[in-house]
Amino acid sequence: MSLKIALAQINFLVGNIAANVNNIIDAAVYARDQLNADIIVFPELAVTGYPAEDLLLRADFIAAANNAIYQLIDRVVGIALVLGFPEQDGDKLYNSAVVLHDGVILACYRKQALPNYGVFDEQRYFTAGSQPCVFEFNGTFIGLTICEDVWKSGIIAATQQAGAELLLTLNASPFNSGKIHQREAVICEQVKAAQIPLVYVNQVGGQDELIFDGASFVIDATGDIVFRAEEFKEQISVVEFNGNKPIKLACAPLYNEISSEYQALVLGIKDYVRKNGFKGAILGLSGGIDSALVLALAVDALGADKVEAILMPSRYTQNMSNEDAVLEAKILGVKYHTIPIEPAVNAFTDMLAEVFAGTTKDATEENIQARCRGVILMALSNKQGKLLLTTGNKSEMSVGYATLYGDMAGGFAPIKDVPKLLVYQLANYRNTLSDVIPVRVITRPPSAELAPDQVDADSLPPYEVLDPILERYVELDQSAETIIAAGFRHEDVARAISLVDRNEYKRRQSPPGIRITEKAFGRDRRYPITSGYKGI
Amino acid sequence: MSLKIALAQINFLVGNIAANVNNIIDAAVYARDQLNADIIVFPELAVTGYPAEDLLLRADFIAAANNAIYQLIDRVVGIALVLGFPEQDGDKLYNSAVVLHDGVILACYRKQALPNYGVFDEQRYFTAGSQPCVFEFNGTFIGLTICEDVWKSGIIAATQQAGAELLLTLNASPFNSGKIHQREAVICEQVKAAQIPLVYVNQVGGQDELIFDGASFVIDATGDIVFRAEEFKEQISVVEFNGNKPIKLACAPLYNEISSEYQALVLGIKDYVRKNGFKGAILGLSGGIDSALVLALAVDALGADKVEAILMPSRYTQNMSNEDAVLEAKILGVKYHTIPIEPAVNAFTDMLAEVFAGTTKDATEENIQARCRGVILMALSNKQGKLLLTTGNKSEMSVGYATLYGDMAGGFAPIKDVPKLLVYQLANYRNTLSDVIPVRVITRPPSAELAPDQVDADSLPPYEVLDPILERYVELDQSAETIIAAGFRHEDVARAISLVDRNEYKRRQSPPGIRITEKAFGRDRRYPITSGYKGI
Repeated sequence: MSLKIALAQINFLVGNIAANVNNIIDAAVYARDQLNADIIVFPELAVTGYPAEDLLLRADFIAAANNAIYQLIDRVVGIALVLGFPEQDGDKLYNSAVVLHDGVILACYRKQALPNYGVFDEQRYFTAGSQPCVFEFNGTFIGLTICEDVWKSGIIAATQQAGAELLLTLNASPFNSGKIHQREAVICEQVKAAQIPLVYVNQVGGQDELIFDGASFVIDATGDIVFRAEEFKEQISVVEFNGNKPIKLACAPLYNEISSEYQALVLGIKDYVRKNGFKGAILGLSGGIDSALVLALAVDALGADKVEAILMPSRYTQNMSNEDAVLEAKILGVKYHTIPIEPAVNAFTDMLAEVFAGTTKDATEENIQARCRGVILMALSNKQGKLLLTTGNKSEMSVGYATLYGDMAGGFAPIKDVPKLLVYQLANYRNTLSDVIPVRVITRPPSAELAPDQVDADSLPPYEVLDPILERYVELDQSAETIIAAGFRHEDVARAISLVDRNEYKRRQSPPGIRITEKAFGRDRRYPITSGYKGI
Repeated sequence: MSLKIALAQINFLVGNIAANVNNIIDAAVYARDQLNADIIVFPELAVTGYPAEDLLLRADFIAAANNAIYQLIDRVVGIALVLGFPEQDGDKLYNSAVVLHDGVILACYRKQALPNYGVFDEQRYFTAGSQPCVFEFNGTFIGLTICEDVWKSGIIAATQQAGAELLLTLNASPFNSGKIHQREAVICEQVKAAQIPLVYVNQVGGQDELIFDGASFVIDATGDIVFRAEEFKEQISVVEFNGNKPIKLACAPLYNEISSEYQALVLGIKDYVRKNGFKGAILGLSGGIDSALVLALAVDALGADKVEAILMPSRYTQNMSNEDAVLEAKILGVKYHTIPIEPAVNAFTDMLAEVFAGTTKDATEENIQARCRGVILMALSNKQGKLLLTTGNKSEMSVGYATLYGDMAGGFAPIKDVPKLLVYQLANYRNTLSDVIPVRVITRPPSAELAPDQVDADSLPPYEVLDPILERYVELDQSAETIIAAGFRHEDVARAISLVDRNEYKRRQSPPGIRITEKAFGRDRRYPITSGYKGI
């Protein structure tokens, strides 16, 4: 008995139920007519997009999502649709998967394992289901599971016990570096233990901080992956089953770590700009490595004609920096303007002279420079309707080596979750595709250029030391004691940790950025600002 | 049999376990020696402060909190200590209450009802307990419950069935306007139904967005409140029981709604400044009602010598505004400076002339003015180590009637959750205590003064219309349809809702502020920025 199952790896827009339903209809018609599919499987909560966050608390939104299912029941016949929606039942809400076929609801499954850690808040919205769900289709008994369900032990087994010969899994599984290997390993392991084939459909696309990487797949009962869709792209594919045995197809190759990170960043920028209706993006180009990388990412995401670079030299900007910034803009073919900040800095210096009389220079004067740049960039962003991209990296965000409302100004921070050493690696990687970042930008010592001859190493441990400390403290929640025991110097650990601890207030006001690690600043790491906790 | 129970309504510092333990010891000694108490009851999670958020995911932090309990066991003898801490058991964490007495752990209770809505994320951290807990003390059988437990039906009854004659409840129940009446009503109702007396101990103090209002109380078995501690103040009180019958004491009177809101705002500013170690506060004083109110609040919180006001007139600032701002500063006795912004605005205008050639004036030019003020205020804040208070109100935050990095710049936004009409009411209320806000500031039409003869009513519905719409849409999650059906004009509703929908990006970068309503922007309302949802 042959069964053709389509995997609808689609990029939905959170909150736009009407558009998502249209996408679902188009995909179902395509799968039926072009792929001869019997069943099409959509991602978790496809109707609303994922994560819809507190939109899920709005009665009108939930009503619209539930109405959409009733509208869809007989909208596309001749193919079964399996799709996720927030199911209202009395005063309870479930994260559900429904099977629609020729005007009938064949089955409805309620997600049992609701993640409430990391970036996930599902217990804020949903009640957990408690029953497996199996339905018969053309003689095959098919079980339904949703995302976290197949990461936990017990749920697959219970679904098998209820009669399932084949599992469909609807997912919204966000990317982080290396996650795909973990995801495939965990689920292959589960499948192997249970000896039941599984169809895994993931959504794709950027949604604020999160990137969904697609890479949907099919595993046979022995735990082998017999099909994989592409990463970071929309794709509707079909896999044929003989009974419950999938027929092997070509697997899309996996990107290596650095190229997957690069692709995630490109997709994140592209979707933030597109989904929020910006006309393009602008950024401040300093001649440093961070803005050079963000420029390359933005051009790869949006095209050179949609990106504009602004050079804003001060008296502390070296000629080398200006030359390199101009070179970057020219190589990538983006429009650029040079607006020296001196007139505004001088104006503020004069205006503040009286109240600052008798004080000594400190970070205040450096911040004024950075904030003059922020004002210029925001003025251009406002005037042109273009998104201002902030160029700060994760190392800076961690230790607060950035000026609030200055270089931190902007609507989106693409490399906010990229540690400095990885910024270099990504720049080198991009240059292997084509030379876009001048070598000197990569090799010169990093500097904020806010004071004479300033370099980052004046006030921070070298990034080769700082980045691994930050990874341990911020991402892995290790204690100072543990980090020092791993071989780091007490003074470096103390400096790094105390800076992380006291800069939560800056991070709280930073723009959202793309999550590529296991723990990003944002929804993922929720620290109090007012805190007596001292990590060291 | 007499039993004296002390209620320790204390202001803890989140994250500072050592300081919190010292507070606990001091309070226990005081209660034993000065109040002759047999038992002292502390708030929920007293050892860590509440909410400690993701500090609860740090192994070192949890270990320190658990060690603190072992250190406390025999630290104060001759009195039983009932206190909250995050109890580690294997890989599980519980929100627990422990009873320590003369070197022995008499009981340990694990909270059963873990709130995971609104500002609460307890299921992110804790596993729910499943058992009631009753211990005998001097012949009385005492049951333990924690906060949400006594809002749910069933837990009190189960604790009674386990033998409890008297309940102790440890709480961290945040303030919002009117909450105290709801809290007392709900719990009196529960107590009345169960006919069991209850001792309710709440923490007090400001913690980022949240205010804990204290107002701890004791209810007898008939549901009557026989004692209430003060609102918004630290207080250690004692109530004597004959068996399980509390002896009636004086109840602190409750503030009326407007004065409780005012007190909450004062406490919020005071604790944010104190707990974060600022030397004082500064703010921009415009002559408008919002900054006038924030100035009064800041002075009431910190004292006039700790507050500094900055006047930053532009060509659009009316003389009246400057006069009133000076008057406000003088009446309250705060230092003020006047720094006209024209030189910086002119500098930016010149710098941008080339790139802006051929464009027409729009909000960009208004934003530049607001951002010049932001640069000046941040420079003063940086130089002096004083907290910059942002003066925007909830109506503005809702509709985005504010400039990011401009008037939104600052570390703390005291009236961020105060709708404009309530700003007026609070200003009038403050004037009933002493005349500090000139009448003209209250009666003149509100204006941002960023363009000639500009008033808010040019671009927004009148606040008498706007504020109720916003309350329905933002706080009550009502649909446009529902709001229009309640009698509001379609165009006003459409204007308000579309502004709320598209200004999430601004709110995401706004400073934290004090929550006084049932739903504040911040941890309380988690909306996606990228969203296709249109409320109308």
